[in-house]
Amino acid sequence: MTVDASMSARTGEVLEELPVSSSDEVAAVLSRAAAAAPAVAALPPAVRRDWLKAVADALGDEPTAARLVAAADHETGLGEVRLTGELARCAGQLRFYGDVAAEGSWLEVTIDHAAGAAPDLRRMQVPLGPVAVLGASNFPFGFGVLGNDTGSAIAAGCPVVVKAHPAHPRTSRLLAEVATAALAAAGAPDGTFALVSGFAAGTTVVQAPEISALAFTGSQRGGLALWEQANRRAVPIPVYAEMGTINPAVLTVEGTERLDEVATGFVGSFTLGMGQFCTKPGLLLAPAGHDVPNRVASALTEAAPTGWLLTGPIATAYSAGVDELVAAGGRVLATAPAADGGWTATATVLEVAAADLAAGSRLLEECFGPVALVAEYADRAELDRILDDLQGALAASVQSGGPDDPDLPGLVATLSARVGRVMVDDWPTGVAFTWAQQHGGPWPATTAPSATSVGAAALGRFTRPVTWQSVPSAALPEALRDDNSWRVPRRIDGVSGGAS
Amino acid sequence: MTVDASMSARTGEVLEELPVSSSDEVAAVLSRAAAAAPAVAALPPAVRRDWLKAVADALGDEPTAARLVAAADHETGLGEVRLTGELARCAGQLRFYGDVAAEGSWLEVTIDHAAGAAPDLRRMQVPLGPVAVLGASNFPFGFGVLGNDTGSAIAAGCPVVVKAHPAHPRTSRLLAEVATAALAAAGAPDGTFALVSGFAAGTTVVQAPEISALAFTGSQRGGLALWEQANRRAVPIPVYAEMGTINPAVLTVEGTERLDEVATGFVGSFTLGMGQFCTKPGLLLAPAGHDVPNRVASALTEAAPTGWLLTGPIATAYSAGVDELVAAGGRVLATAPAADGGWTATATVLEVAAADLAAGSRLLEECFGPVALVAEYADRAELDRILDDLQGALAASVQSGGPDDPDLPGLVATLSARVGRVMVDDWPTGVAFTWAQQHGGPWPATTAPSATSVGAAALGRFTRPVTWQSVPSAALPEALRDDNSWRVPRRIDGVSGGAS
Repeated sequence: MTVDASMSARTGEVLEELPVSSSDEVAAVLSRAAAAAPAVAALPPAVRRDWLKAVADALGDEPTAARLVAAADHETGLGEVRLTGELARCAGQLRFYGDVAAEGSWLEVTIDHAAGAAPDLRRMQVPLGPVAVLGASNFPFGFGVLGNDTGSAIAAGCPVVVKAHPAHPRTSRLLAEVATAALAAAGAPDGTFALVSGFAAGTTVVQAPEISALAFTGSQRGGLALWEQANRRAVPIPVYAEMGTINPAVLTVEGTERLDEVATGFVGSFTLGMGQFCTKPGLLLAPAGHDVPNRVASALTEAAPTGWLLTGPIATAYSAGVDELVAAGGRVLATAPAADGGWTATATVLEVAAADLAAGSRLLEECFGPVALVAEYADRAELDRILDDLQGALAASVQSGGPDDPDLPGLVATLSARVGRVMVDDWPTGVAFTWAQQHGGPWPATTAPSATSVGAAALGRFTRPVTWQSVPSAALPEALRDDNSWRVPRRIDGVSGGAS
Repeated sequence: MTVDASMSARTGEVLEELPVSSSDEVAAVLSRAAAAAPAVAALPPAVRRDWLKAVADALGDEPTAARLVAAADHETGLGEVRLTGELARCAGQLRFYGDVAAEGSWLEVTIDHAAGAAPDLRRMQVPLGPVAVLGASNFPFGFGVLGNDTGSAIAAGCPVVVKAHPAHPRTSRLLAEVATAALAAAGAPDGTFALVSGFAAGTTVVQAPEISALAFTGSQRGGLALWEQANRRAVPIPVYAEMGTINPAVLTVEGTERLDEVATGFVGSFTLGMGQFCTKPGLLLAPAGHDVPNRVASALTEAAPTGWLLTGPIATAYSAGVDELVAAGGRVLATAPAADGGWTATATVLEVAAADLAAGSRLLEECFGPVALVAEYADRAELDRILDDLQGALAASVQSGGPDDPDLPGLVATLSARVGRVMVDDWPTGVAFTWAQQHGGPWPATTAPSATSVGAAALGRFTRPVTWQSVPSAALPEALRDDNSWRVPRRIDGVSGGAS
């Protein structure tokens, strides 16, 4: 492909053809990123906070925001309301990662003074170097060119090279223009951030010796292919691929008292953004004998969600995926009418037999789009058997009868062993960016289950520890010198002690 | 192989033939480890500290210690003085990891109370589950059956299945007997720790679905093979392989004022334990014009270290490796007389031309045993070129003219980008177990450059984060409840705040 085609999700029309990066351009971007890396890494994190704040401010500028939302709405069909909120969230995330960087805990500064036979040892996390970001199709702002990966990587002191997503190439370029100008005005070194575009550019950055880590948000197929490519490099690099999963929801017996609310909430969550969330609850496990499947079907009929999928291939895959679910034993309970034209899709709820929910079944793999399964379990033993057969997932929810529901402790414990986030009486499709957030999970939810792609700990992905032993002060990094001029929290001689 | 042969390093004789685990025995061990995992994980870390202390106390018991040292000395030839010290260190490590566990920072407890649209989020690290440990040949106590990997995994709440090292099968079994009895007496669940033996058992544990992570210490070849096997599993698991590297040492121009001390120190470090350290300094880069190669040669002749290698295959590989270094351009400057009989080896120092130290050369790969290279660099540009061509390493040292040496800041910065630990006027062959230690490094020093296999952060390898969202107190893990009954440090609403 020599162009990226900007297409309307609502009509399928090509709006614009945009040139993609030449191999020389990609080489120049990589070279500038590598050259910038030492300077970006050595600056106090508060300086990088100021850069990220400058980008966030630029995104909040009114004509800029309107232009970005309009472009994204054309390309994704996600609607102005959702995209306006997502753009504000994107700016908020950038500010948050800057604040986390400046606070300094992520450096994990640890100082052991010489004692007995042990020498003076000083340890901290250092930035890995340039990071390649391959963002998501479904969140052009939140997980796109300036999303969580880019924000946390720059916060951690790593230059970023983003590959433009072919599902929203115009939006990608606009975001990059805004960021490039804001970073330059804020004094960030040339090479701190760049966008490349086109399939060949993506292949090049994954293999480039200048790149130290890959961050990806998307399908299991795409993420696993990337992970395999990175492992075949002469020097393998970490791949943080955050992928879609089935994200089970379990309704307890006592929770059936809230059945109306649960049915409505489930439909709202699995059809939000036309089901194009990696955290979509794809399976509701409900106690038999409460007519739950039919109540969910009614809720879908009543809600009647309509909209468009992000791309032609996603629409095709969705349609094929629903057929696969039927072939694997799913029975269509209800559908909602589709929108007209473009990459429309029919929201669907299927009933499946508990016995068909077995390891290896298509029913237990994600189907991206507005579809979900409902199954009834006879008893706790059957429920546990199903939960045992589930793949690792990003999130799981329990819909309970309240804090005293006797099933809660056991279910929460069981689910916490299989996912990255477990919740009670909430749905998984909101992912707050805070200190305690975890967005990741056991294989195959991510290729790096010890990492998160949202929240304060996201910075850690792009660092590694180094210890300086018996190194004179003048040759130590700033954060490890006795005067602690960066005022970061430090553990000294085993005692965690604040910024002094 | 249906037996493990316990052999004398000093004579090459078979001392004893020991039966290895049957496949049924291995299956039972794995099953018990999986069954124990939830209980081991759920206990307060202070309880696991008591278990580790019990094992450490048992190792310190006089007749036990004498029996262990005698067995290890027979099998490794490392000598009673070294092994007595290493056994004390092993016990000290177990106590240290227990103390780190009880202190609780490794749980990374983070609580964000509900605020605005964001729900109550509580995040902590949870144990991965049973860990398989494949220890080192060269440290039967420090990195063996009860070494850093076992200590830190149990501390982190994971049952451990150790594969006995075929280089010291008798020592492995004795250690396991001591640990099994001490753990049982201390009340640890059956399945908390077990030893398996034999090649087939090793293959089984690497593939076993019950195993959640692999910890390995040994050769690059062995570690990379393990990593590839683990990546081919249906559910890949993390592999913490800590492997040997060349560990460069750089002498500055001003450092030549300390040439006698440096030459003696270099020889002492690269021949310590007959050069069988993963942190052995394998290459000294010295400024031209100071006669450094000959001074190092004299120091080797004077020190005249003798001893035995750990196994017959290691002795064969050492001899072949020295031949390969010669074939790659090395010139033998001096050798020390070999010991008599058994798996003896000739300590050797080779001179190499700076131009031959280029990426891909055999000269830049580890040769396990008492051999090192000395090369002279003409100027800083040539030195930087060589450093650029080096593989990632565990450690690097700078031998300087003192804290004001003008070459120090630049060299320390350059080396810190290529290794896990950089030191000044020290040698890399001591690895203290403290809070600030880092024992690991960029690929191919380890398969997980963000991890350490020694020091407080070693626990983190065997955990992953989980976030509990809007979960009622009764269904939360103990450490996340408001009363903080475990008294662990917590970050609350973004503020790091001690144990209250």
